[in-house]
Amino acid sequence: MAGSYFRRRMTAPATFSLFVRQLPPSRGFLVLAGIDEVCRFLERFGFDEDDIAYVERTMGLSPDVLDALRGLRFTGDVWSAREGSIVTADEPLLELTAPLPEAQLVETALLNLMTFQTTIASKAVRCRLAAGDRDLVDFSFRRTQGLESGLLAARSAAIAGFNSTSNVAAAARYDLRATGTMAHSYVQAFPREVDAFQAFAADYPDRTTFLVDTYDTADGVRSAIQVARELRGHGPLAIRLDSGDLGALARTSRGLLDSAGLTAVRILASGGLDEHGIERLLSEDAPIDAFGVGTKMGVSADAPYLDTVYKLVAYDGRPVMKLSTGKRTLPGPKQVFRRNDGDLTGDVVGLREEPAPDGYHPLLECVMRDGAMIAPVTPGDAVRAARTRCAADLTHVPHDNGQLVEPEPLVVSLSASLTALAAEVAAGLGIPVS
Amino acid sequence: MAGSYFRRRMTAPATFSLFVRQLPPSRGFLVLAGIDEVCRFLERFGFDEDDIAYVERTMGLSPDVLDALRGLRFTGDVWSAREGSIVTADEPLLELTAPLPEAQLVETALLNLMTFQTTIASKAVRCRLAAGDRDLVDFSFRRTQGLESGLLAARSAAIAGFNSTSNVAAAARYDLRATGTMAHSYVQAFPREVDAFQAFAADYPDRTTFLVDTYDTADGVRSAIQVARELRGHGPLAIRLDSGDLGALARTSRGLLDSAGLTAVRILASGGLDEHGIERLLSEDAPIDAFGVGTKMGVSADAPYLDTVYKLVAYDGRPVMKLSTGKRTLPGPKQVFRRNDGDLTGDVVGLREEPAPDGYHPLLECVMRDGAMIAPVTPGDAVRAARTRCAADLTHVPHDNGQLVEPEPLVVSLSASLTALAAEVAAGLGIPVS
Repeated sequence: MAGSYFRRRMTAPATFSLFVRQLPPSRGFLVLAGIDEVCRFLERFGFDEDDIAYVERTMGLSPDVLDALRGLRFTGDVWSAREGSIVTADEPLLELTAPLPEAQLVETALLNLMTFQTTIASKAVRCRLAAGDRDLVDFSFRRTQGLESGLLAARSAAIAGFNSTSNVAAAARYDLRATGTMAHSYVQAFPREVDAFQAFAADYPDRTTFLVDTYDTADGVRSAIQVARELRGHGPLAIRLDSGDLGALARTSRGLLDSAGLTAVRILASGGLDEHGIERLLSEDAPIDAFGVGTKMGVSADAPYLDTVYKLVAYDGRPVMKLSTGKRTLPGPKQVFRRNDGDLTGDVVGLREEPAPDGYHPLLECVMRDGAMIAPVTPGDAVRAARTRCAADLTHVPHDNGQLVEPEPLVVSLSASLTALAAEVAAGLGIPVS
Repeated sequence: MAGSYFRRRMTAPATFSLFVRQLPPSRGFLVLAGIDEVCRFLERFGFDEDDIAYVERTMGLSPDVLDALRGLRFTGDVWSAREGSIVTADEPLLELTAPLPEAQLVETALLNLMTFQTTIASKAVRCRLAAGDRDLVDFSFRRTQGLESGLLAARSAAIAGFNSTSNVAAAARYDLRATGTMAHSYVQAFPREVDAFQAFAADYPDRTTFLVDTYDTADGVRSAIQVARELRGHGPLAIRLDSGDLGALARTSRGLLDSAGLTAVRILASGGLDEHGIERLLSEDAPIDAFGVGTKMGVSADAPYLDTVYKLVAYDGRPVMKLSTGKRTLPGPKQVFRRNDGDLTGDVVGLREEPAPDGYHPLLECVMRDGAMIAPVTPGDAVRAARTRCAADLTHVPHDNGQLVEPEPLVVSLSASLTALAAEVAAGLGIPVS
């Protein structure tokens, strides 16, 4: 496509709109994530000589097209909602305006980065809703799709309110708190469980979490108590439960710890948990202080993808739309207007140039201009800002949209100007707007 | 953990076994993928000065431990089944023996790379089973978790029998066939649909696929026919259906094409397809020649993760096991014995050193020794070999294990020697083996 555009000098500005067509049934809202990564991708976008040689060899592109690809950089503008914002289907999350070949070539990467990270953040936030003020630890690295994605998943979870990650590389890159426990293999590598506990506590007296279920959980807790008593004065200490009936084991363990006077030793639970598992445990008053959440968050197991699309809405000043059955799109560069009181139920999707209605403000801000990020910040600061935004928006999620089972989806309305433009463009295509 | 091991000179050889605990309910077998990537990861494993500085700053490791980390390389051996093999739960897919800190530090990366790629290949092969000899095109890049994972997903799909990918970078890296169509935006960027078709066909007369559903599908097919007639003598040509009732539209389109004498123009269908959608379309004799499969394959939507584990089975010559509730592991380095006639229903898991039973051969082969790949091949050759292996194994999948709905899981048995060792080790831990 890009070759064809270059050959035909179709390099006028094109605006694409990235949005979600429909929420998964188990989601009442989404947490936007991936914007910072998208901007960094766009800043470094380009083809190297190996890329050019490959397309030359396999696609037979002409020398002038190859030259155009060789020199290609992203030179456009990007508007987006802030990372961490609570958003929903049918409202643009990001709009990009650039010469058509550039805008087209970045499509798949943008969909990939935005879909994945928003998917994970939108799952992770449900764990945060279920966990209340308990700690949440990201354990997802072993289940994400590849190594780089493990870093991005940890970042998405942090935006949604996770307190720490077991992924040390992610902690380093995004200035997160790294917390780890020990593996069963650590326990097994010592002759006895208590030997492993003593060794770890001696080496890390200020942050030991005893994994107590390698052989028998109650015995494991007793070994942890023995070692914790030897360490008295150090801490914080915790035990970790990773199998069996976590609620019952937590009660037993809490009893044993309290009887030993170790009321400050915390209990971390893990093992196949998601928001529903956390809610169930807390509804039965399981004395659990922290949850490790891995697999089901790292792949968003119940809703592993979002129906995101990236659609051309204007080319060379001409608003365009698509009429495919069930996949209609609305024309023109857009804006989302959100109520100033933070109410998330009143979003209005309108045209970019129309003024905000009274009591509303624009949600999309210009984050890149002429191919450069407008206000680049460190990776750590970007996560902190997104996390703050998410926490603020969370206070405005209505009960029906925020419940964990069968949530109502947040919905949006269209401005009169946008509705009129859609009717006009559809009429020009000879199709009545429904 | 690694710091603790180094400090205590616990650097004796450790063997870890990577396996799947239980198949997802919708899987009767798995296609192993990720071995080549794991070996390449292990060959380049190590920490750079930034990594060392970070752990020094945040973890307070001692200078000798930091030195040990600084110089760390993977020096161990890896045994694995060949990529593309059909495998199942409860049999080791990969075993790694290395000094304990090395073997421990690579755990998460190995689980990540093996789980993800095997998950995708095991979904993709179901599309291959459903599609019979129709072409399958990988469209998953926009839905995978990050950019690198898009390349690995394309590779996994190719191993499972996909014919081509829309991911040009993956095609370049793994020597796959790149095939693309046009996007709706391409059609929209021209004043009329027929203008877009004419432009694309003029630019790529030897491989044009007309996307016909941007406005009205039947009209789109008529435009494609008009342009295809002008091009007569070129080809191969195809049309792509991406929305609506794909079966009905395929029949309508086929009728229009055939009436125009364009019997050689193929029909590609896409849009939310997976193995079930493909089977449904083919069961109603939809005249579809090729399927584009993206989202649901790229995240393995119905089974987005596997319950893979990486468990210590021997340390310093001592076989070990774990007895956690529901998560018991078997001790000692192992081998999988498979029947020589290719029958997949008779796998026996035994000890590494025991001889193969009569009529069986070992499935696990040594692929890395002393940290180096034994027979490294190009990325393209690795994919081709795995693809051949998968196709061969597929001919041996029994009906009950291969059906798309409620498949029976392939099961394995244990050798007498392994059963005896497990009883012995458990007895030593004071727990009767069940």
